[in-house]
Amino acid sequence: MVVNPNTTVSMTDTVAEAGRTVAAATTTVVGGTPTRGVSAVESNLDEVWGAVGVLEQVAAGEQAGVDGYVIACFGDTGLAAARELARGPVVGMSEAALYAAAAVAARFTIVTMPPRTREQSQRVLRHAGLEHRCTVRAIDEPVAAAASGSLHLLDEVASEARAALDEDRAEAIVLGCAGLTDLVTPLHELLGVPVIDGVLAGVTMVEGLLAMGLATSRRATFATPERLGPQ
Amino acid sequence: MVVNPNTTVSMTDTVAEAGRTVAAATTTVVGGTPTRGVSAVESNLDEVWGAVGVLEQVAAGEQAGVDGYVIACFGDTGLAAARELARGPVVGMSEAALYAAAAVAARFTIVTMPPRTREQSQRVLRHAGLEHRCTVRAIDEPVAAAASGSLHLLDEVASEARAALDEDRAEAIVLGCAGLTDLVTPLHELLGVPVIDGVLAGVTMVEGLLAMGLATSRRATFATPERLGPQ
Amino acid sequence: MVVNPNTTVSMTDTVAEAGRTVAAATTTVVGGTPTRGVSAVESNLDEVWGAVGVLEQVAAGEQAGVDGYVIACFGDTGLAAARELARGPVVGMSEAALYAAAAVAARFTIVTMPPRTREQSQRVLRHAGLEHRCTVRAIDEPVAAAASGSLHLLDEVASEARAALDEDRAEAIVLGCAGLTDLVTPLHELLGVPVIDGVLAGVTMVEGLLAMGLATSRRATFATPERLGPQ
Amino acid sequence: MVVNPNTTVSMTDTVAEAGRTVAAATTTVVGGTPTRGVSAVESNLDEVWGAVGVLEQVAAGEQAGVDGYVIACFGDTGLAAARELARGPVVGMSEAALYAAAAVAARFTIVTMPPRTREQSQRVLRHAGLEHRCTVRAIDEPVAAAASGSLHLLDEVASEARAALDEDRAEAIVLGCAGLTDLVTPLHELLGVPVIDGVLAGVTMVEGLLAMGLATSRRATFATPERLGPQ
Amino acid sequence: MVVNPNTTVSMTDTVAEAGRTVAAATTTVVGGTPTRGVSAVESNLDEVWGAVGVLEQVAAGEQAGVDGYVIACFGDTGLAAARELARGPVVGMSEAALYAAAAVAARFTIVTMPPRTREQSQRVLRHAGLEHRCTVRAIDEPVAAAASGSLHLLDEVASEARAALDEDRAEAIVLGCAGLTDLVTPLHELLGVPVIDGVLAGVTMVEGLLAMGLATSRRATFATPERLGPQ
Amino acid sequence: MVVNPNTTVSMTDTVAEAGRTVAAATTTVVGGTPTRGVSAVESNLDEVWGAVGVLEQVAAGEQAGVDGYVIACFGDTGLAAARELARGPVVGMSEAALYAAAAVAARFTIVTMPPRTREQSQRVLRHAGLEHRCTVRAIDEPVAAAASGSLHLLDEVASEARAALDEDRAEAIVLGCAGLTDLVTPLHELLGVPVIDGVLAGVTMVEGLLAMGLATSRRATFATPERLGPQ
Repeated sequence: MVVNPNTTVSMTDTVAEAGRTVAAATTTVVGGTPTRGVSAVESNLDEVWGAVGVLEQVAAGEQAGVDGYVIACFGDTGLAAARELARGPVVGMSEAALYAAAAVAARFTIVTMPPRTREQSQRVLRHAGLEHRCTVRAIDEPVAAAASGSLHLLDEVASEARAALDEDRAEAIVLGCAGLTDLVTPLHELLGVPVIDGVLAGVTMVEGLLAMGLATSRRATFATPERLGPQ
Repeated sequence: MVVNPNTTVSMTDTVAEAGRTVAAATTTVVGGTPTRGVSAVESNLDEVWGAVGVLEQVAAGEQAGVDGYVIACFGDTGLAAARELARGPVVGMSEAALYAAAAVAARFTIVTMPPRTREQSQRVLRHAGLEHRCTVRAIDEPVAAAASGSLHLLDEVASEARAALDEDRAEAIVLGCAGLTDLVTPLHELLGVPVIDGVLAGVTMVEGLLAMGLATSRRATFATPERLGPQ
Repeated sequence: MVVNPNTTVSMTDTVAEAGRTVAAATTTVVGGTPTRGVSAVESNLDEVWGAVGVLEQVAAGEQAGVDGYVIACFGDTGLAAARELARGPVVGMSEAALYAAAAVAARFTIVTMPPRTREQSQRVLRHAGLEHRCTVRAIDEPVAAAASGSLHLLDEVASEARAALDEDRAEAIVLGCAGLTDLVTPLHELLGVPVIDGVLAGVTMVEGLLAMGLATSRRATFATPERLGPQ
Repeated sequence: MVVNPNTTVSMTDTVAEAGRTVAAATTTVVGGTPTRGVSAVESNLDEVWGAVGVLEQVAAGEQAGVDGYVIACFGDTGLAAARELARGPVVGMSEAALYAAAAVAARFTIVTMPPRTREQSQRVLRHAGLEHRCTVRAIDEPVAAAASGSLHLLDEVASEARAALDEDRAEAIVLGCAGLTDLVTPLHELLGVPVIDGVLAGVTMVEGLLAMGLATSRRATFATPERLGPQ
Repeated sequence: MVVNPNTTVSMTDTVAEAGRTVAAATTTVVGGTPTRGVSAVESNLDEVWGAVGVLEQVAAGEQAGVDGYVIACFGDTGLAAARELARGPVVGMSEAALYAAAAVAARFTIVTMPPRTREQSQRVLRHAGLEHRCTVRAIDEPVAAAASGSLHLLDEVASEARAALDEDRAEAIVLGCAGLTDLVTPLHELLGVPVIDGVLAGVTMVEGLLAMGLATSRRATFATPERLGPQ
Repeated sequence: MVVNPNTTVSMTDTVAEAGRTVAAATTTVVGGTPTRGVSAVESNLDEVWGAVGVLEQVAAGEQAGVDGYVIACFGDTGLAAARELARGPVVGMSEAALYAAAAVAARFTIVTMPPRTREQSQRVLRHAGLEHRCTVRAIDEPVAAAASGSLHLLDEVASEARAALDEDRAEAIVLGCAGLTDLVTPLHELLGVPVIDGVLAGVTMVEGLLAMGLATSRRATFATPERLGPQ
């Protein structure tokens, strides 16, 4: 299940569809949209409500027998909690994107949006440990600008990506928002470097973990919790 | 306002009372208890519901004209979101404790509980930047064990703290749970080193920020968000 | 292709066979064994000759139309050079194992062999950025001890792994040698935590990169070199 | 006591007066000026003589029954030694400023003077652990330029601070010299972000530590030394 | 012995001659050129063949009774393996240059060539631990451009070095290629800051280690290996 | 000149004598003892007075035409200031020891005394950047115990050094006090790993810098200061 933390169904459809383009024939990709929450995840406040939405969908997925989850929000909101709730593996789109980028480039840059979310990318980067190989840039657009596709943002993203290649010595670009997934191909064609989308990377990473029979460790940090939600 | 992220009123009363012992005569310390949520914050799941509870209380505090907030939960759950919501400063008890410890000791150790929360302390430590001067230890007790005072935990905490002094070269002890506040004096008397409670440190830090006229920066990361909650 | 950097064919067979257990039905896993080199890779000297062997096999693979490569040596010897040589993605078993571990556990430990190779694991760890979440331990056995299977090493590895869980707060174990792949299941059954083998992780990671259409960036660090070998 | 490490009495008066504006009604702020030393602290040489001056004043303060100290020099010269000498807490203006900034902004920038002191700020930053959230800039003026107030430096400081907001993603400004304290209000009005002065932050931090009954740990690093000065 | 990892004899002659200018009267500096390998070391592929060449020469040196070695390649290719092979100390020109720079400047910059080798400098920097004090820049020239002296590159190197002084706050320049050794004096005269060449630094460092009677530790990492080369 | 920061002439004689054993025939090693100060440097207070003593001797050395200086105190007290004062290079015995150790071992341990000085070693280590390769241990003896030789401390130092080899994976030992210089040979014989004394390393490092014609950069951090001492 690709879990969209916000309530915008068109975004869920886009990311689930994108996920299907890389999934194995034997994998069924479903999207999850919270029934209640915020229409986009940008602020730290949004992240709290996004996490609540993620948990609602993971709980529903567990009922439905879902094998694994990708959290389709750069910032990986709700990831640690979702790992406690799900039987199978849960991967954040940001960490998956960073690991894929690290396998194809010595250095890379996240191009995210809007600027206020850069620290959320830094937080993910610090947890993943890749601060020494990755910088963070942003275009000045709200997440909502990508609600119905992002091809109209190509110029803006390309401009910031070019600056990354020239000034930050980036060798690949990580798209810092689930809504930008349809830029993977056009941006790659423009720049000639790998362009990585975290939803795609997340779907293949969950497939890989499942192939290896791996699920979240229950020792200490992600042990099954005493409480599953408000009493 | 000292915001308890869980719904256990006795804990709110304890931490608010503790806060009053260090507050200036001109400061009124009030406690905030979420009307709905979890009875203790231990797991990553609890942290999501704790953050929701913190936001509920900060929203109420803003209505009531509260000047500043201390989040009374080691792990500082909901801190970044609360900073977006509140007009005045918001301080996490963990970061406040770490800064106070850094001002009185070259190295120190957090003694938290239960063991599953150690990574939450590491996360705060990494954000505060003090990993090179601080280690994390835990006693094997649930947070609920401190719901009505923690004097019965003195031996367990002291034993772990002594190990910190001997093996980790700690020179001060940070209590890693709001519920341990009544151990400050007995533990200090036992060990002879500074013992720091984050609620106390948080209250004095908020007072200090208010005296300087400082509030959260509205530039980028904590700018006033478009949405204040679920629509 | 799973590239064994040493000349021991039984090891190549073991790792290729292991790779097949996780590969998709549409993936053909072939093993590559250098025709000349060292029988095991333990020392820094061995790593130089292992890198030469890796390059020999990748050059052969390019002739044969191989899509992607896993370097089956903890230490990822020859990885950067192989990336310059291959059209498709090249993944080191160590980095793949670390990323998989980071997706299922907050902290983890590499159990490698022999002790002299610990610094090689540290080097990989530093490059991957996961030093803050991973420790390195070793059993005192030469790599050759695992040339024909490693089930007889289970007790030794389990003993070190248990020390990792208890003393290093590890929540998962990464096997630090391609030769230990047949310990994945028995060790997992003994310890109850995720046990990760880098060859398996590498095979699924290469599959994922290929599904996304990603190959090594040709910008700067891994640009096609002027010289492909000695003149 | 606010300890000025240099012999310029007008600077002591300015910082003590500034300290009084944030101190509680029950706090008496006194200034301390070394009887012998250097007229400003800029170079590494100055720092040695500044440390000697700090110790002279702390020794005098101990005679006079002073409760706590703020070292009013960016670079916190003499801080570790003063902690050994004083019964009560001793806070450096730099560390206090950094902690206050960390509580109101995700990222911030020190604007210091002159350029040669930037490494002294880096040293403090590294010890405080906040290098990942703070950059250092400098205006090209000697400390002496601020001996009788710094309002004439507003344009220069504002220009560098604006560059910090734009290029370093700073969200708050830390004034990197005790002599700049009268820029707090005008700079805040110009830029609209928090502007933090370390003397103010230090005074409130010492008040907080005293309210909690905390003093420097006597275990190991700051144990009472055998010798209090030259024999 | 100054070991040139490439097969270009004119480069060996240049670096050996340079080494003699700083060596003590009692030291005999000889150059070592691999009989087979690559004509320059730029790519990661070149580094593998460079390492093979270094080992060939160190093996020859051991036969000839050489006391210590400098690897004359920025990137220190083959260094760890050479330490296992040689009885006496082996120093990489990069690490030697960085330590010398750290002793004469607070911050410094490596100016290397070509741009693709910057990550090799970063790798050395990370191992040496000096990333917080050093940046890496490159001129866009192949190593071969310096095969017969580098005076014609002075303008290009000086331009990048000036940018380092102005934008990176560098206080000294490290020449990032053995071929640039004849720029030490003219660049120092142009810029007025220390200019450090790693071959010179390496020769004096080996002399120093020999004077102290120090050789590579045989404990763990660099223990005498079981195999000295391909079987 | 080997500058002893304390007033104990027997220590100066010991370290100068030790320096002579590694110096080139063309080098004259002189010792410098402050005329006023403290008899040993252990506490942070001692370090201030030690720095004053170092400056006194460097000033005298400049009058006498000394070419370069080694500060013979682990902790490198007064180093930055001395660099501003001296025409030629100034090397701290700690940094010199760490760089020499890094050239002969992958990991190493400082054995210092007394325990209160461990943070001073950590400070040097952080500045040198070698925290990832070096640990710090201490024997429980005052510096004064080594005032007339340290052979009677061999057992204590050896015991801590053995613990470093076994528990910290050290491969070499750095003696963390100038007074321990006569343990170099007996400890090496006992343990079979490199044993490094900073005074010896410092003397050879200054010789190397002088051979290269290098002196402290005058750009920014160590520019010639306006004031050379108290007015």
